[in-house]
Parts: sequence; C-alpha cells; structure tokens
Amino acid sequence: MTVPSLADARALDAADPLRPFRARFELPDGLIYLDGNSLGALPKATPAALDRVVREEWGRGLIGSWNAADWIGAPQRIGAKIARLVGAEAHEVVVADSTSVNLFKLLAAALARDPARRVILSEPGNFPTDLYVAQGLERLGLGARLKLVERERMADALDGEVAVLMLTHVHYKSGARHDMAALSAEATAVGALSLWDLSHSTGGVPVELDGSGADLAVGCGYKYLNGGPGAPAFLYVAERWQDLLASPLTGWMGHAAPFAFDDGYRPAPGIDRFLCGTPPVLQMATLECGLDLMLESDPAALFAKGQALCDMFITAVDRFAAGHSLELVTPREALRRGSHVSWRHADGYAVMQALIAEGVVGDFRAPDILRFGFAPLYNSFEDAWRAANTLHAVLAEGRWRDPRFAARQRVT
Amino acid sequence: MTVPSLADARALDAADPLRPFRARFELPDGLIYLDGNSLGALPKATPAALDRVVREEWGRGLIGSWNAADWIGAPQRIGAKIARLVGAEAHEVVVADSTSVNLFKLLAAALARDPARRVILSEPGNFPTDLYVAQGLERLGLGARLKLVERERMADALDGEVAVLMLTHVHYKSGARHDMAALSAEATAVGALSLWDLSHSTGGVPVELDGSGADLAVGCGYKYLNGGPGAPAFLYVAERWQDLLASPLTGWMGHAAPFAFDDGYRPAPGIDRFLCGTPPVLQMATLECGLDLMLESDPAALFAKGQALCDMFITAVDRFAAGHSLELVTPREALRRGSHVSWRHADGYAVMQALIAEGVVGDFRAPDILRFGFAPLYNSFEDAWRAANTLHAVLAEGRWRDPRFAARQRVT
Repeated sequence: MTVPSLADARALDAADPLRPFRARFELPDGLIYLDGNSLGALPKATPAALDRVVREEWGRGLIGSWNAADWIGAPQRIGAKIARLVGAEAHEVVVADSTSVNLFKLLAAALARDPARRVILSEPGNFPTDLYVAQGLERLGLGARLKLVERERMADALDGEVAVLMLTHVHYKSGARHDMAALSAEATAVGALSLWDLSHSTGGVPVELDGSGADLAVGCGYKYLNGGPGAPAFLYVAERWQDLLASPLTGWMGHAAPFAFDDGYRPAPGIDRFLCGTPPVLQMATLECGLDLMLESDPAALFAKGQALCDMFITAVDRFAAGHSLELVTPREALRRGSHVSWRHADGYAVMQALIAEGVVGDFRAPDILRFGFAPLYNSFEDAWRAANTLHAVLAEGRWRDPRFAARQRVT
Repeated sequence: MTVPSLADARALDAADPLRPFRARFELPDGLIYLDGNSLGALPKATPAALDRVVREEWGRGLIGSWNAADWIGAPQRIGAKIARLVGAEAHEVVVADSTSVNLFKLLAAALARDPARRVILSEPGNFPTDLYVAQGLERLGLGARLKLVERERMADALDGEVAVLMLTHVHYKSGARHDMAALSAEATAVGALSLWDLSHSTGGVPVELDGSGADLAVGCGYKYLNGGPGAPAFLYVAERWQDLLASPLTGWMGHAAPFAFDDGYRPAPGIDRFLCGTPPVLQMATLECGLDLMLESDPAALFAKGQALCDMFITAVDRFAAGHSLELVTPREALRRGSHVSWRHADGYAVMQALIAEGVVGDFRAPDILRFGFAPLYNSFEDAWRAANTLHAVLAEGRWRDPRFAARQRVT
C-alpha cells in the first residue's frame, strides 16, 4: 500500500457501507477516539433506552418486572445475541458477572473434570487478570499449577497433565491473534480443554468458536460491544460440555429451580448452571443496546473494515516510524492480528499524553506501548489518517517532551 | 396495642419525622408497595443522576472518566457509605460483585485460614444461595463440609472443627433476627470466624458489625438500599482480618498495582484485595443515589419507624388472623425481627396474587408464606393499615378463590 493521503482516506469513507453507523454514537466533536477496545463509545440510543428501563420497568413495574419485562431472561437473551458474533449457538452463551469471575468458573470446572490433570497452560504476558485468576486457583489447595510457555512452544507444552489451555485470542498489548482452530485442536489431541478469552476479539475480529472446536470462552461487554463501563461479561461452554462440567460458583441463578427455595443445590441443565447471582439488570440493558446496534451491521463488512483501518494506520505511520524510534509490535498480516495496533516507543507514556492533549485518544500500556484501537462501527479512515498525522507532528516537533506529560497517570 | 384506626395511622404519619422522604421516591399512585425488601423503590433523583453518568461521564469523558469521575474509586467510596449503616469503619467495606460471589470469596478465605477446620456451620432454611455457595465449596475437593443445625442448637454445634459460622442476620422468610453479638462471640470462643449475610438487614434494622465482634459480612444493594435491580453487593472484612485472609477470586482489581500489568498476583493491602473484576460503573452510580438518600435520614429514626410499621401491621392483622387461618411466622418482639412480617396461610400463593390485584404488593415464599416488607424511608403507617384492611377483605370475601390467582408464577 502506498502512503495514503487525506483524500484517499475520505474516498474510502465515502465508499464505506458502515459509514452511517458513526452518527449512531455520541462522540465529542473533533475527538479521534481510538480506545474503543478499552471502553466502547456510547450509542445514541442507549440513554433513552436505559431511562425507560429505570423509570418504567424499575420505577413503575417494580418487582413485577422480573417477569413482565423479562429481566430474568436477560442473561440468556443477550447471550444469544453475542453468540451471533462469536460463531456459537444461542444456547452456548450467557451474560454474567465479570470476565475474571467467569474465568474462575471455567478454569475450576476444567480442573474438576479430571483430577489427574492439574496444569493450566498459558503464556507469559497474557492479560493480567487471566493469570491472576489462575494463580488464585493454584493457591486454593487443589494441586492446580499454572504453567507459562512462550507461544512459539505452546504446542510442545501440551501434554497429558494439562487440564486446560487458557489463551487470550487477541493479545491486549501486541494485538497478535492466536490461531484458535489450530491450538484448540492441539489441546483436544492431548485430552485438554481450550479456554479462550475473547475480550479483545468480540466485535473486532471474526470468531468461530464452534467452527474452531473451542471448548470454553469468556469475553468482555464494555469494549467493542459498547455495553458501557463495567458492563457484564459473557461465557461460552460448547454444548458437548455443558452437562459434564460444573461451576464452582453455585449461586441460586444457576439452580435448576431458583425459586423453589430448596436447601439443596441442583445444577440447572445446559448453560444456565454457569450463572451465579442476581443479574445486573440496568447494565444488561445497556449491553443489549450496544449489541442491537452492532447486529444491524453486516459482520463480514465490520471485520473487513477493522482490518482496513489498521492497515491504513500502519502504512501511514510506517513512513516516519523508523526515524522516530517507533517499532511496530502488532503483526502486519491482518489475519494474525486483532483490531488494534501497537507501537513501541521508549517514551511511550509521554507520547500518548501528548497525543491525548491533541485530541487523539489511544492508550499506553506499560512499559512502552502506544496502543490504538479501531472500532469499525464508528471509526473512520479519516480518523486513522489524522491519528497517524498527529502522531507524526507530536514526534517531529517533540511535543511529548513538555514536562506536563511526564507524570504517570493512575489508570491507563 | 389496641387495634389501630385509619385516623390513628394518619396521626402517626403526621408526626413522622421521615415523612418527607416518601415524596423523594417514584411510586405509582395508589400502590401500596410492601416488597422493598426484595426490590427497593426508585429514588426520584436516580434517573437524572444516572443519565448524567451515561451522557457526560461515559459519552463525553469516555475512558478518561475512570480517573476524572473517579469510577475507579467507587467500590471503596460507596463501601464507606454502607459502612455507616452497618456499624463498620469506612475501610472495612467495599462494593463488588453479587452477594453470592462475595459469599464464595469469604467462605473460601475462612476455610483457607486453618486447614484443620473444614466445617461451614449454618442452619437449614437459610437463604438458598448461601447454602448453595457453601455446597459448591463442598464439591470443590478441599474437604469442606456444610453442617446444618437448627438455630436453637447452634451454640452447641460450634466446636474446633468449625471454620466459619455462616448465618443470615434477618431470615428472608420468617423475618427472625439472630443475636449477632452473642453468636459472633460463641464463634470466636471456639476459634471460628463468623460470616453474616446482611441482605435483609442493611437499611432495615440496626447493625453493629464492629460492636458485635463480627468477622465477615456480605449484603445486598437492591433491597432496602434502593440501588436498583441487580445492584452490586458489598462485603465487610473486620480490619483485624484483612491482611490475614486471601480471596480465592484474585482478579486484577484486587491486585496491589492493577495497572502495572505484572504477570504475578500480589494482593492489595486491606479490603481492596477482596475486589475482583472491573466494577459495574452505572449500577454503582444508582446504588450511590439510593445510599445518599438514605444517609440524609437519621438511622435511629429510620429503624424505630420500621419497627413501629411492623408492630402496627401485626396488631391490625391479629384481630382477624385466627379466624382466617393466618399464622404469624415473624417474632412479635421487635428486637428479634427484621423490617418485614410474614404470615403462613395454606393458600398463600393465591392470597398474595389477590392482594397484588388489589394494589397491595407483598410477596409469596414457598410453600405457604405471605411476606410484607416495610421500608421505613417510604412506607407509611397508612400503608400498613390499608394493607391489613385489604388482606382482611381478600380473606373475608374469599377473593383469592378466583381461578386466575391459582397458577404459580415463575418468579416471586
């Protein structure tokens, strides 16, 4: 690809079938928001929909809304919508809890399946909470052991001791995408389960859980799905495992008859047994708004555009990267990456602060990563072009050397 | 107390210092809502406050609101507000996850403290999710054992095998209140921890966790606290235990440095280690609205009014109870009960449906319990009087025999 001009970017936007979706989001004028992979933008329809749930369903319907507004069915109803984006059957996905809690449920279930298999296999630098949750299981006294192996040697490390291979499909920092089908097959071949964290994939890249032979998965509701800050997470259990695995978090919503108020726990059939406590109704509603909007689009067009946005951004930065000590961390090959692009820079923190001050919001990941997320539903080719150009100006003019950009922020 | 008249009820309302709070809630005209112990009513201030969080903090502030709007500090900030209602220090309470998930964290932490103690002691008929979560731990392979003993023999059952005594302070069905100080002391005397479920207590009756010598507690945000459907729950760990106990759910928000993105888990000091995943920001906001409203009231006046409402209701129903086969399940002595009143009736389901059809909303708990919750912030003495009168009419005229009230509803 040759270095794109602003006119090239605008021509691509004019031809983009997804272009009308940008107007469906609230985004501050002039802001180039490339952090939708951390917190998705607000769909314009969400505030009114939420207000209706609050005023009518909660305020007027009160307790009766559990039935009348089908609050009780939200985990399955919204799970079925997510299933369409991750290549699963409707009854294989539910919305519940946080990604961390869902990881715990599925890791513990995988360990309980075969007492002879005690290893959780993952890679160093996986998303922290994934590793931390596995370490919590290590300390629990069940003999579980987290084994970290570099991705190049992952297949070799799969053996009869492995209970579960836990990987993040698209790496939160590098953006590198694992080959889900190949690694799931390797796990299956040694009798281990595969557990995929789809937090940086869902709504950003194509995912085919059933088609890949994946066993288990979790994912996040507040990134590309635009479900709002702290939106509930989801989990997937392939149909063939649902009645063979048990959640350790046996709350009442996972009971076969939650409102019988029996003293004894009996797991619900199917995916429902992986529910635990009372669902967060209001954030279920905002997650559903985000999903309904995304499901109006053609997923194939969505994912193709995400790849094209990343391609253009990489090409536009490439022309000045070497001269400014920027090193591309993300794979150049579209099929090997997610929908975000990361560059390494020794002063990455200050550079990102300077960019934010110029109205280009990406984020920084320690120790030296500049990360730019491209949400194909609302980001434009002009966004990608302008972000690259602003990055060039920040570097060429040394704007990031301003002392106000030196202090580390609390949350990035 | 003599049988109250409507004029008596109105006189009590006129003298009630909390009376102005009723106008601060959205409640449908003519509805007598006595189910605030299941789902609290909507404070009038909540929709606008939530809309501001959605449109301004999420929509305009985007990712920056984690710092700028202090989303990241919500679990501790709101926990400190709950602490004022449960007799705890600000740094002993955080808001997180669901009651069920928090029970799991604290039960597992208590079991991990001493490998020689494997018993979770509780009572039959405790709230189902409490028993189910303990049963999940039983199945986990740690040798944990749930032992259920009737409350009259609880003190005798406390011995050196008990890791934790897990009780619900106010029973969800009967409304009976345990003596927290006496039972916590009994647990301490045998070296066990006490864990109190405050779901039916917080905001309804006085709770003095520190003063009672309680060790651990959990509670619900969507009942008397009026935090909205599926509001996040809270947990309490007495300061003396915070650095000695470890949560099994070691998500990134419980890490000493969540944004360092280290591979190794290090628990945060203090109560923060009991956090797990990303907090549900929007439902944190609605919970905070409910709390801020409650904290405008004098807690002593609040709890005294709750007792007086229950007293009046019991007295008003007493005059016809025996003649209509109603049996009072709740203790008559105010200090031995919560802020709800339950009556047993063989056709309780149909009777409650008939009451709801008349605009008196309580709830039914299988197999035969009519339950009426009195939320002192918005329920009036006239509510209590009218509810008793309507119950009398439904029974005296046999309205509950209408076939449309016969079918069991899905959620109660």
